[in-house]
Amino acid sequence: MMKFCNACGHSVSYRVPDDDDRPRYVCDNCDFIHYLNPRIIVGVLPVWREQVLLCKRAIQPRHGLWTLPAGFLENEETTIEGALRETWEEARAKVANESLYRIFNLPHISQVYMFYRAELSAEEFAAGPESLDVQLFNEADIPWQALAFPVVGQTLRSYFQDRKTGDYSVQSLDIRSSAFKQP
Amino acid sequence: MMKFCNACGHSVSYRVPDDDDRPRYVCDNCDFIHYLNPRIIVGVLPVWREQVLLCKRAIQPRHGLWTLPAGFLENEETTIEGALRETWEEARAKVANESLYRIFNLPHISQVYMFYRAELSAEEFAAGPESLDVQLFNEADIPWQALAFPVVGQTLRSYFQDRKTGDYSVQSLDIRSSAFKQP
Repeated sequence: MMKFCNACGHSVSYRVPDDDDRPRYVCDNCDFIHYLNPRIIVGVLPVWREQVLLCKRAIQPRHGLWTLPAGFLENEETTIEGALRETWEEARAKVANESLYRIFNLPHISQVYMFYRAELSAEEFAAGPESLDVQLFNEADIPWQALAFPVVGQTLRSYFQDRKTGDYSVQSLDIRSSAFKQP
Repeated sequence: MMKFCNACGHSVSYRVPDDDDRPRYVCDNCDFIHYLNPRIIVGVLPVWREQVLLCKRAIQPRHGLWTLPAGFLENEETTIEGALRETWEEARAKVANESLYRIFNLPHISQVYMFYRAELSAEEFAAGPESLDVQLFNEADIPWQALAFPVVGQTLRSYFQDRKTGDYSVQSLDIRSSAFKQP
């Protein structure tokens, strides 16, 4: 909820600007229009031989549950740069040969996820400040009931499925709050 | 440039918040942190038989130059929904069989483009309010010297190349200001 104008500090109204078709926060004083747009979350599925790397979250939401390293894309970085940064921040891991793998739209929370597949450069990783633990898992040992987000389970299931055929085509999926259950 | 807090209207400082590693606009009064993130632009490459549909821009920037229908993704819509909305707004065209085709990172302006290939549902289109003209073009007639943005030329060249093989794999490319010339 926006109450004040970033540019001049006066109050804003939530109304449809001229020549627009949906309401925005518009300054009552300087007419500045504050556009709000979806945010991008970039992440990596780090692979080491037969195993994948997961992080146990040390932060809310979903404290204590397992996730792939991922986070909000920052201004002035590319999606790969952001994905590699998050992998270092959360898993203290370096990866190579990254390629785009899964895109998820979560329109109910105005988020777009982009996950890259990548290979761990070495069997070296550690919990960063936002992780309680970082571990390699075989498919049989994935903590399916303790994954942090639906997109994580979806990406992992896709990966183990695709690994059988070697076809890792990019796919884009929509996840809406009511249409998707936690794995 | 942000000067005032959206939440309480007080002045903001540009500084590194606690537990962060880069500067943000932080409210001097209520400590609210204003995160700024890249924006997503979604668009369509509309195909009709051997031809592609382009729009002549009626707005700045690049008024009078040709582009693919595209625009900022809005909150609470999926990337496909946004791409179809822009195609209607700018070209009064409906498309089907859309599939993700090209992703472009433009980190110098903090934008991520996502273009979908799609088929025109009928040979029906018209200039929307943001277009001066909308036309179908054969490859030989593309106005290469009058395209509005590098991502448009890049997407069109890729498409005509890929059409020879029928392999339209998704690709992700980075375009940096200094490293890319207008086609």
